[in-house]
Amino acid sequence: MAEMNHQILLASRPSGAVQPANFRLVEVPLAPLADGQVRVRNHYLSLDPYMRGRMNDSKSYAAPQPLDAVMIGGTAGEIVESRNPAWTVGTKVVGMAGWQEFATSDGTGMQRVDDSHVPLSAYLGPVGMPGVTAWYGLNRICTPKAGETVVVSAASGAVGSVVGQLAKQKGCRVVGIAGGSAKCSYVVDELGFDACLDYKAGAIDAALRDAAPDGVDGYFDNVGGAILDSVMLAMNAFGRIAVCGAIAGYDGEPLVMRRPTLILQSRLKIEGFIVSEHMGDWPAALGELGGLVAKGTLKYRESVAEGLARAPEAFIGLLKGRNFGKQLVKLI
Amino acid sequence: MAEMNHQILLASRPSGAVQPANFRLVEVPLAPLADGQVRVRNHYLSLDPYMRGRMNDSKSYAAPQPLDAVMIGGTAGEIVESRNPAWTVGTKVVGMAGWQEFATSDGTGMQRVDDSHVPLSAYLGPVGMPGVTAWYGLNRICTPKAGETVVVSAASGAVGSVVGQLAKQKGCRVVGIAGGSAKCSYVVDELGFDACLDYKAGAIDAALRDAAPDGVDGYFDNVGGAILDSVMLAMNAFGRIAVCGAIAGYDGEPLVMRRPTLILQSRLKIEGFIVSEHMGDWPAALGELGGLVAKGTLKYRESVAEGLARAPEAFIGLLKGRNFGKQLVKLI
Repeated sequence: MAEMNHQILLASRPSGAVQPANFRLVEVPLAPLADGQVRVRNHYLSLDPYMRGRMNDSKSYAAPQPLDAVMIGGTAGEIVESRNPAWTVGTKVVGMAGWQEFATSDGTGMQRVDDSHVPLSAYLGPVGMPGVTAWYGLNRICTPKAGETVVVSAASGAVGSVVGQLAKQKGCRVVGIAGGSAKCSYVVDELGFDACLDYKAGAIDAALRDAAPDGVDGYFDNVGGAILDSVMLAMNAFGRIAVCGAIAGYDGEPLVMRRPTLILQSRLKIEGFIVSEHMGDWPAALGELGGLVAKGTLKYRESVAEGLARAPEAFIGLLKGRNFGKQLVKLI
Repeated sequence: MAEMNHQILLASRPSGAVQPANFRLVEVPLAPLADGQVRVRNHYLSLDPYMRGRMNDSKSYAAPQPLDAVMIGGTAGEIVESRNPAWTVGTKVVGMAGWQEFATSDGTGMQRVDDSHVPLSAYLGPVGMPGVTAWYGLNRICTPKAGETVVVSAASGAVGSVVGQLAKQKGCRVVGIAGGSAKCSYVVDELGFDACLDYKAGAIDAALRDAAPDGVDGYFDNVGGAILDSVMLAMNAFGRIAVCGAIAGYDGEPLVMRRPTLILQSRLKIEGFIVSEHMGDWPAALGELGGLVAKGTLKYRESVAEGLARAPEAFIGLLKGRNFGKQLVKLI
């Protein structure tokens, strides 16, 4: 009897908030490998906010996730069977195998990784797409100088935690924004940010003035909405805003910018980016990030759901801010 | 008896739309010149949208216009009396002498200009601050390449008309937005834009899709508000928006950006700027613009009010889009 693979498909597009019924778990037999193919057993699946955008059938930077197909997603695993001489069994790899336990591939898009100094799961976090996202938005758009103040939202998350730590290493004052006192304590006590504002405790305008007494020079925006409105009000002249996410708006709620005249009044630069469109920066970024993780000077935290069947629930929690650190699914 | 000067002061700050009563015309005697001083007779006063922002007592990039002081404004005139050997009578000058007929100065901030090939009034328009504003926003922020599509609002105005003509010279497709069919005809027939949309004829979304069939790569925004919302929807990936003005919002009406998630979805760069903060670019810009005006390849149009007393009415008309081309006041 053939070994079975489990996959999660997009069953329907959400109208409003994502529901478990938007997904379908299926069991399919693994076909024998053809010449040139390898089989990867995925140990970790990465859950990321961008997936919410793909679930819509609307204009976006990327094609929508097709219905009845395996959900898109980054994965880390190892080669368990190979009919391709370039890939030997036991090699650790990362790729975009999606929400499934096994992937069958000719190697396209797979990257070898070395887990002797950096844990395998970190290649989906600080030494992977989230880490490079942080590196790019900070270094290429926020461009902070020592002594400036940098603010980052979703500060305890996979991207935000790296943004803040890199900015601290550049000599900036760093203020995080996160939901709840536990996340805020972690951001200050463990990650070394100068301050962290709990947006669940109410409007952050006054707290931001206290936490950033010299104003804000760079803002790494992971959320959009009312928090972006508040930070814009605190921006200094010539401030830079890297727009990385708009999690508050993925569900289709109206999401306006309340004070766009500040763009002119404060001569702001606001720039949206998608890290996969800047591949030229990845090698340098990954080299720097891998070195920092191996040395222990870049800290990160993971929120791990156990088993593929838990992925929808974990993803819905991520969209609601229930995760704490990088959201992963540990596959069987 | 001393010669008299006429001045217009800010009498009160507007609440909502500017009213004639916000200004006060006064007559004051001209004091005799001290050593080192010169007297300038102002021939032209420039009226510009930025003045509306200065009339408020709110946070902005510049200090508010003080109450009971001469209104700020650019001027072009000639030296009629001098006790400063560096300035001879008859010299043509531009400066920021404000809303008054005569200025008394030690020469600080005054620039000599040559009106033998370029008319004096053009130094307040295409070869002055409006022209450099167009040059900077287009070349430093919109950065259009040949074959790309550039859109500019307030297209028949002092800034917009220069933006579009410079973009045409770079080989771009250029679409203007203006109020009324007379302005639109002028923009296309006289200035050579490829198309012009009349925003007074209704929502521009569909017309913009027709006029910019390949999408919009650069938008020079002089107005903000609903027109910015519409153009954002038409922007291509990696589009650039230079935010130069927000005339629709100066009167304090709520002015939101309706679809900020497009910043991420279309990876837009949006940047506000004030041309007086980029003085390093002025010499090159003025050299280029002066050459084009002298050759007749940069066209411009003026709307001239006669006499200082007409300045408030002309300024209110400017804010409502009643001017057609650069708004000037011809002083006695």
